[in-house]
Amino acid sequence: MKLLEDLAAREAAATDRSGHRPDTLPDGVVRATCVDDVVETLRWASAHRTPVVPRGAGTGLAAGASARAGEVVLDLSGLDRIVQLRPDDQVAVVEPGVLTADLDAAAGEHGLFYAPDPASAAISTVGGNIATNAGGLRCAKYGVTRESVLGLDLVLADGRRLSTGRQTVKGVAGYDLTSLVVGSEGTLAVVVGATLRLRPRPAETATLAAHFDDVVAAAAAASAITSARLQPSVLELVDAVTLEAVDAARGSSLRSRGAAVLVVQCDGRGAVADTAAVGEVVAPFATSWSSTTDPAEAEELLAARRAGLPALEATGDVFIEDVSVPRSKLAEAVSGVQAISARTGVRIATIAHAGDGNLHPIVVVERGATVTEGPPWEAACAVFDLALSLGGTLTGEHGVGLLKRTWLRAELGQDSLDLQRGLKAVFDPLGILNPGKAI
Amino acid sequence: MKLLEDLAAREAAATDRSGHRPDTLPDGVVRATCVDDVVETLRWASAHRTPVVPRGAGTGLAAGASARAGEVVLDLSGLDRIVQLRPDDQVAVVEPGVLTADLDAAAGEHGLFYAPDPASAAISTVGGNIATNAGGLRCAKYGVTRESVLGLDLVLADGRRLSTGRQTVKGVAGYDLTSLVVGSEGTLAVVVGATLRLRPRPAETATLAAHFDDVVAAAAAASAITSARLQPSVLELVDAVTLEAVDAARGSSLRSRGAAVLVVQCDGRGAVADTAAVGEVVAPFATSWSSTTDPAEAEELLAARRAGLPALEATGDVFIEDVSVPRSKLAEAVSGVQAISARTGVRIATIAHAGDGNLHPIVVVERGATVTEGPPWEAACAVFDLALSLGGTLTGEHGVGLLKRTWLRAELGQDSLDLQRGLKAVFDPLGILNPGKAI
Ligand SMILES: Cc1cc2nc3c(=O)[nH]c(=O)nc-3n(C[C@H](O)[C@H](O)[C@H](O)COP(=O)(O)OP(=O)(O)OC[C@H]3O[C@@H](n4cnc5c(N)ncnc54)[C@H](O)[C@@H]3O)c2cc1C
Ligand SMILES: Cc1cc2nc3c(=O)[nH]c(=O)nc-3n(C[C@H](O)[C@H](O)[C@H](O)COP(=O)(O)OP(=O)(O)OC[C@H]3O[C@@H](n4cnc5c(N)ncnc54)[C@H](O)[C@@H]3O)c2cc1C
Repeated sequence: MKLLEDLAAREAAATDRSGHRPDTLPDGVVRATCVDDVVETLRWASAHRTPVVPRGAGTGLAAGASARAGEVVLDLSGLDRIVQLRPDDQVAVVEPGVLTADLDAAAGEHGLFYAPDPASAAISTVGGNIATNAGGLRCAKYGVTRESVLGLDLVLADGRRLSTGRQTVKGVAGYDLTSLVVGSEGTLAVVVGATLRLRPRPAETATLAAHFDDVVAAAAAASAITSARLQPSVLELVDAVTLEAVDAARGSSLRSRGAAVLVVQCDGRGAVADTAAVGEVVAPFATSWSSTTDPAEAEELLAARRAGLPALEATGDVFIEDVSVPRSKLAEAVSGVQAISARTGVRIATIAHAGDGNLHPIVVVERGATVTEGPPWEAACAVFDLALSLGGTLTGEHGVGLLKRTWLRAELGQDSLDLQRGLKAVFDPLGILNPGKAI
Repeated sequence: MKLLEDLAAREAAATDRSGHRPDTLPDGVVRATCVDDVVETLRWASAHRTPVVPRGAGTGLAAGASARAGEVVLDLSGLDRIVQLRPDDQVAVVEPGVLTADLDAAAGEHGLFYAPDPASAAISTVGGNIATNAGGLRCAKYGVTRESVLGLDLVLADGRRLSTGRQTVKGVAGYDLTSLVVGSEGTLAVVVGATLRLRPRPAETATLAAHFDDVVAAAAAASAITSARLQPSVLELVDAVTLEAVDAARGSSLRSRGAAVLVVQCDGRGAVADTAAVGEVVAPFATSWSSTTDPAEAEELLAARRAGLPALEATGDVFIEDVSVPRSKLAEAVSGVQAISARTGVRIATIAHAGDGNLHPIVVVERGATVTEGPPWEAACAVFDLALSLGGTLTGEHGVGLLKRTWLRAELGQDSLDLQRGLKAVFDPLGILNPGKAI
């Protein structure tokens, strides 16, 4: 175990990729290299009533891993072994610091894959994905992280170890503590191990990209795919503001082909036929579309989507929203966001996991400008209001962290919040685990 | 609201289909016909500290709905409306008393289906399925009930109403209370409404039945299907003891074709090709196999599986186990059960959701004989031990109820049990909701 107290380490662990800048630094950073380090840290923290902020790769977008004076950061990225990969059971046992894409690649060697694939898969940890219940591109078909977690190894706030869940696919002995901890953003327990479900790699994959004159047409096309009972594994929407940023970053010319793109992938034995059916559904809405079964071409189509957020970040400071609406309300949500942008004069780009009704309206301001006041913040708040008014939620996958806490009561109500705080107190009676986050 | 205190009503609501016979009767039965009845009952029960046992259709197999003197049964089967069916969002909003098969049929009118399909779908309620996190035949591919529940409307122990979850496919605002209540067997809250996920009905379905000389070969074939990266929607195993009972009940001659049957269904555009691939995998293990795309013939193949439990119940009293093991351990589990039967001289039939590694070893005794002592109970206990020793769980889908509680500590450990009791106390500080069950 190593407690780092130098300025560089404390600065590097002070926040995540949300754009939130805490005004103080954490007191120190523990870089755990084994589970005993975690146990020891939490025992010490309990004894001293010192708050602990668990940290994976720090790629979070809700300031869930941000830490300040009086707090100690517990960095789990060094616990990065794939402990077991059991192809016959389609199960992997991993430490929390494994990078998501590394696990997927290891599974690939056995004809399997690990379904959760946030756009950050190459840089985020499995533990961070579990703590945020991360979504991703493929969850249109395969569900979010929770659907792939069979069991967890935890260290509780007082340093005791606890296992939840099981090694089997099904099981209902006792309450579902696994699901409770998934998405709890480090406030209930520290994840030090996970038993994860792998899946057979699909026999075929086909990918389609369609261009549209405007983003509302693209959203309507996405809803039409769902209504047509098609089940793509990936169904992503990218708007004009994002396409312009991607073109600038990659030297492409996507914007010239239309004001929005849908990227759709189908998999399984019927992938080609399914993609053709998707083409028929989107054709009336689109200006053009094309499909491919070539993996390199498919990666190129998806790369435009994956490059979206980094490209926008290159143009200014961003505040990334994560609202989710019922799938039939996608077009309404997208046009509502456009109206908010027009009304407030604030630049808002939209990328969406359209298959799930999960939108990322991204407020972009000049480098160094503050998002959390004035018109940018008004715009951000208007987007939250819009989502709730459409029967949606504040956050589909990034979590509440620090940034969305003030909005939480509007969504959950006081009774639910009180109940959840009661549950937190059962796990963490002293309140030392990531206080002030998530609930 | 109607409080029934007559003997007939109290007898009818005293237990479920587990074979458990409580030695006293509940004090009364409330048949709720609206949510206010539930609110009123719980307010009254809280004021009088009277334990309440929520009840759906009473088809449970763990004595979760059994009730005794001093307790009042809250029967929810009268809350049986499908409130909304929104095909474009692939969402249904229902009351808890809707029969599972009725919801599936209603979804079918829109080209959709409701995935959870316990073999009891025609007679069990959606609310009971949620409270037990029921599995079923199709969950090999589509997951258990939890995977289809987006949100819940609850009445808490003190009569307050609370909504959990959301109408959207994804969402991570706050802790996952929905998953916590799913599978909690009526001990945390009463489910009075649910927002459920529907799915597109698959374009094609193909069904295969294979016969084997012995059940271990059939189990090995099932594991081989999983290892071959095939993903059937249904993968069920039926052993010789069960086949004999089915033949006796239905006048069929399945047993003459071998000592075990696997029934496999694949769906989606590649269904026929996938089923052919399954055929190739099972061929080296099987004595014969055949497949069909004809829905009536497929139903006939599945009917043999669905008839299993009722057919066994016709031959004596039963104790139905529900152990689950890692999928690669299925053959080991099945032969272990055979060995236990041979050693103890107790008749044990096995039906398995083989695709999930979930076995139902069914201890059959003469009508009126007691299961919970002597050789039958030793055999049942030996099966629990076997499952745990293979890295498995006591219960894959039926729940803990009353019958498996003594075993729970062996699986979960004391710390986990204590934590879970702490969570229960947050929901239900007076301990009036289904006390003595589940945890
Ligand atoms: C370019 C980019 C694209 C992204 N795309 C997506 C996307 O498609 N989908 C999506 O869901 N997210 C996405 N994200 C957000 C982010 O990658 C996810 O939230 C990810 O799950 C965070 O993982 P991490 O390891 O970086 O965790 P961190 O940011 O370090 O921490 C996140 C939260 O988890 C807690 N935590 C971390 N590890 C543990 C542990 N072992 N035990 C307990 N608590 C822990 C922290 O306290 C914090 O609350 C994206 C981010 C970027 C920068
Ligand atoms: C022939 C047969 C086949 C079966 N096959 C399967 C199968 O394949 N898979 C499977 O999982 N199970 C199966 N079962 C078991 C049983 O059908 C399931 O457990 C089912 O979910 C119980 O539903 P129910 O409405 O009958 O609930 P009940 O038996 O009435 O109650 C079950 C539990 O849920 C609680 N409960 C019921 N309603 C509510 C509510 N609204 N709010 C809160 N708590 C509530 C009760 O208190 C009790 O603890 C089978 C049973 C039979 C008889």
